[in-house]
Amino acid sequence: MGEKTEIRHGEKQLDFDPLERVDAEIRFIGRIRTPWSRGNCPKNVTRARETGQGAIVELDLPFVEGLTGLEVGQGILLFYWMDQAHRDLITQRPRHHDSARGTFALRSPNRVNPISLAAVRITSLDQAAGRIGIDAIDCFDGTPLVDIKPSAPAVDVPPK
Amino acid sequence: MGEKTEIRHGEKQLDFDPLERVDAEIRFIGRIRTPWSRGNCPKNVTRARETGQGAIVELDLPFVEGLTGLEVGQGILLFYWMDQAHRDLITQRPRHHDSARGTFALRSPNRVNPISLAAVRITSLDQAAGRIGIDAIDCFDGTPLVDIKPSAPAVDVPPK
Repeated sequence: MGEKTEIRHGEKQLDFDPLERVDAEIRFIGRIRTPWSRGNCPKNVTRARETGQGAIVELDLPFVEGLTGLEVGQGILLFYWMDQAHRDLITQRPRHHDSARGTFALRSPNRVNPISLAAVRITSLDQAAGRIGIDAIDCFDGTPLVDIKPSAPAVDVPPK
Repeated sequence: MGEKTEIRHGEKQLDFDPLERVDAEIRFIGRIRTPWSRGNCPKNVTRARETGQGAIVELDLPFVEGLTGLEVGQGILLFYWMDQAHRDLITQRPRHHDSARGTFALRSPNRVNPISLAAVRITSLDQAAGRIGIDAIDCFDGTPLVDIKPSAPAVDVPPK
């Protein structure tokens, strides 16, 4: 799926490999099928939505019972793994920022644990096949899926 | 930190160990210090907030540059690891539901990849010490931290 992005001026890498110590293990539960690759991927989910192109979550068959109770029209959170990320970038300079910021002050895919989050809506659901249609997402085709949770706006946004 | 919760009637475990295949590795970046243990932990972040008790995120020192740009008053998302979870529960019956639901239709800590999400507000920040005060959270003291992202309400809630 192509190479990692280059390191930009003003960005800083950790002076150690964060995976010199492994604390927990992830099992991917499926993949996200999208129209996007490095050349044409929208910059965020809002822009992805503007294209009118949906996407499909393909849950691996051993896990499909876990979808019981989800419904078309429902909002869900997808947690997915940015498998092309730099895991050792601790400050970064996105193209739309003048100066570098810390990784934990950015939504960049490059982070120690490259888990991304998208809030989407279910447009179709075939539980037996493990196929969930969603309105839009801004990740590359084939991105590994880590978790699905029902969206809960009252707790997914900080209080005023 | 105590034992895992029991399996309830109507709940179902996978007939395989999801970690028979490991796809990705997590490095914990710190711990969350809270007033809560199994006996007194609020059931959700809203109830935790009602207690008026805050909490402290302790980021490991090698990662503190990653906080550059975060500010007191800002909303952040914390991703943390439920290290006492059952990873093989595929349907579950929470006490407030009549019937079992799929793990991916629930916010239960028990899931294949036990990552929880909390949206909180920064109440104090000592970057050099890696200490972030937050308004409230509903996890046990010592819970491992996986990621911090700035909250972005426009994308963290699905569109209508």
